Amino acid sequence: MSKTNGETVINVPAEKSTSTTNIGTKGKAVAAAGTVVATTKAIKHKGRWKRGIAILDFLLRLLAIATLLAAAISMGTADQILPFFTNHFQFRARFDDLPALLYFVIANAIAGGYLVLSLPFSIVTIIRPHIVGARILLLVIDTVMIALTSTAAAAAAAIVYLAHTGNSKANWVEICQQFNEFCQQTSGAVVASFVGALVFMILVVMSALVLRKH
Amino acid sequence: MSKTNGETVINVPAEKSTSTTNIGTKGKAVAAAGTVVATTKAIKHKGRWKRGIAILDFLLRLLAIATLLAAAISMGTADQILPFFTNHFQFRARFDDLPALLYFVIANAIAGGYLVLSLPFSIVTIIRPHIVGARILLLVIDTVMIALTSTAAAAAAAIVYLAHTGNSKANWVEICQQFNEFCQQTSGAVVASFVGALVFMILVVMSALVLRKH
Repeated sequence: MSKTNGETVINVPAEKSTSTTNIGTKGKAVAAAGTVVATTKAIKHKGRWKRGIAILDFLLRLLAIATLLAAAISMGTADQILPFFTNHFQFRARFDDLPALLYFVIANAIAGGYLVLSLPFSIVTIIRPHIVGARILLLVIDTVMIALTSTAAAAAAAIVYLAHTGNSKANWVEICQQFNEFCQQTSGAVVASFVGALVFMILVVMSALVLRKH
Repeated sequence: MSKTNGETVINVPAEKSTSTTNIGTKGKAVAAAGTVVATTKAIKHKGRWKRGIAILDFLLRLLAIATLLAAAISMGTADQILPFFTNHFQFRARFDDLPALLYFVIANAIAGGYLVLSLPFSIVTIIRPHIVGARILLLVIDTVMIALTSTAAAAAAAIVYLAHTGNSKANWVEICQQFNEFCQQTSGAVVASFVGALVFMILVVMSALVLRKH
């Protein structure tokens, strides 16, 4: 660069600016690459977290299926015949003598059946953690199921409690003095149904957290 | 550019590349500006949609407060004294004679009180639709309240139904034949509580939709 005419002088800053632009571009490219890597990592991390929740969701559904079907079967098979009888009738207690217990069996069977049908959707959210449609569908029906299982449990609990203690004001006798086994079996079923309702509540909150923005 | 030495030849493509880089950068800047405008519009649109949901949330809470407190008060004031009595006792029906109805009053009062306390949080989500913490807090407690109000309604419904129809198998008499007014008032309270539970379910689903990603 011994020649120092105008053109060369003009060209040198041009070259400089080019090189700085290149460096700038390179720097931007590096920064952009860094951002892409960071974003990919964040998405992967988020994906892993969501997948963990989805797997937990699936396991909780399995637990709730067992619990609710056990509740329905336990209540449905509660049937006690006392060893003495008159000419007119046997002393017998069955779940379908009381409408609240009948509702209990039906509601818990429906909730258990829904849970079995929901398993494929739960698996979809494990395979594709970012899917939204299946998640919202499950959330809405789970919310309805909270109400279904907890109403069933509460109605049965009110009746079973009455059977245990009776009510002197309303002149309702405690039938559990005679039908002891029947009352024990139905009480167990009520507890199981409340556990099922609790699992549904956890499922709803988990789904909402996964749907959340951040 | 009459001189065509090596330096000039080298410099021309360098200058060219600079200008193309500049155009490229400008193009990118324009594109970026376009994206920013589009994103801002999308955020504004989303914000408006979220604000609409937040206002609906607030109005539903007001409705639920009225419904649940009406249920609690209606049940709590249910008190009928029959116009005949013996030496030993008056014939009287009150809600606290039956544990299920007592639970009903307490649970509905708690749910109504919670709703009053939740109003400020609901207002926060109207003012700042993108806030997440308040939304999640409301969603979790609303989910618990679904269970609280629906169990209260179901337990009371089971008892009120029994009071209406009685049960011949368990030898429980229908007390509504005597306590007609009492039974009507409690039945109304039960319906109101179920409406409250339904409003909580709608609130939970709405919160989840607002928390959703897209």
